[in-house]
Amino acid sequence: MTDPSEVPTHHENPERRRANGLVIVNTGDGKGKSTAAFGMVMRAVARGWRVAVVQFIKSGKWHVGEEKVCKEQLGVDWWAIGEGFSWDSEDLSQDEAVARAAWDHARSVIGAGEHQLVVLDEVTYPVNWGWIDGADVVEAIRARPAKVNVVITGRDAPEALVDLADTVTEMRKVKHAYDTGVMAQKGIDY
Amino acid sequence: MTDPSEVPTHHENPERRRANGLVIVNTGDGKGKSTAAFGMVMRAVARGWRVAVVQFIKSGKWHVGEEKVCKEQLGVDWWAIGEGFSWDSEDLSQDEAVARAAWDHARSVIGAGEHQLVVLDEVTYPVNWGWIDGADVVEAIRARPAKVNVVITGRDAPEALVDLADTVTEMRKVKHAYDTGVMAQKGIDY
Repeated sequence: MTDPSEVPTHHENPERRRANGLVIVNTGDGKGKSTAAFGMVMRAVARGWRVAVVQFIKSGKWHVGEEKVCKEQLGVDWWAIGEGFSWDSEDLSQDEAVARAAWDHARSVIGAGEHQLVVLDEVTYPVNWGWIDGADVVEAIRARPAKVNVVITGRDAPEALVDLADTVTEMRKVKHAYDTGVMAQKGIDY
Repeated sequence: MTDPSEVPTHHENPERRRANGLVIVNTGDGKGKSTAAFGMVMRAVARGWRVAVVQFIKSGKWHVGEEKVCKEQLGVDWWAIGEGFSWDSEDLSQDEAVARAAWDHARSVIGAGEHQLVVLDEVTYPVNWGWIDGADVVEAIRARPAKVNVVITGRDAPEALVDLADTVTEMRKVKHAYDTGVMAQKGIDY
């Protein structure tokens, strides 16, 4: 491990190759999984990319602020959970059908290749609950057009998604205000 | 540990108190420390907060996109590294003097209390290098006006900052495209 008090005097720079679109997974029990994905959205927008966000979990107040800024100020194509949901799906619980509708949409967005960045926000949960077929998610991402970058967020990222990913970060909780009884804060947490 | 395949049927909801401004630290060797901070900026802007970002490391191409979107589309007060630097400071190395100028600015922004969110981007590095007095950083944050939230990013967050913080997340690298020889990608990494 490098001594953090040592001022770096050079930067290692091995030979590099340009990649096609990357797969990035933000997982773990800590804060910042979705938040970092939205930071990536900001960066992608700055570069003139088309960006799509698909929400997989009913958010309530969560991500409402991000939705507003992404749609109104950054021109992001935002698929709110519940969009495209068919009420004919009486054989499934509503939550499950909603998650499947989100995935149907996400798969077509990934396959269309018109967005350079596609965020599958909190997709790990419905995959882990068996509502969406994880193998189908892996296959759709693997078969994506070359320039499409995919960001996956959520706890307990399935191993097949971790294997597929180029970059995986575990956001690990060291401590959290919530544990000491602090309410979720508007503007900070949602 | 909770079984990730188990669909939650309730949400634990102990008694909660409203906090004053929080101190949030994003540290670790993984991706997403600054990126999550910029996601928080987006959320804060959505809530109508005034936001300030102070950069502590010369960025080159890094964070140029975020700077553009934050300033031009989100109305963030962005202090680029090198601003306010006095060329009279001949007794210090330029990088060190630049970092100190950034901290002088950050301290006054925190103390003024006009911004509900202040991001000290990559401040851990000049603190660890001894360019900025860590005790001074801790004191300025501890003495801040009640509504000011402070986000600190960078590897190897000093213990005194971790102790002071309400929420600390370690972004842990599980794997990174760079390790397999993939170049940093415009739109993804910067």
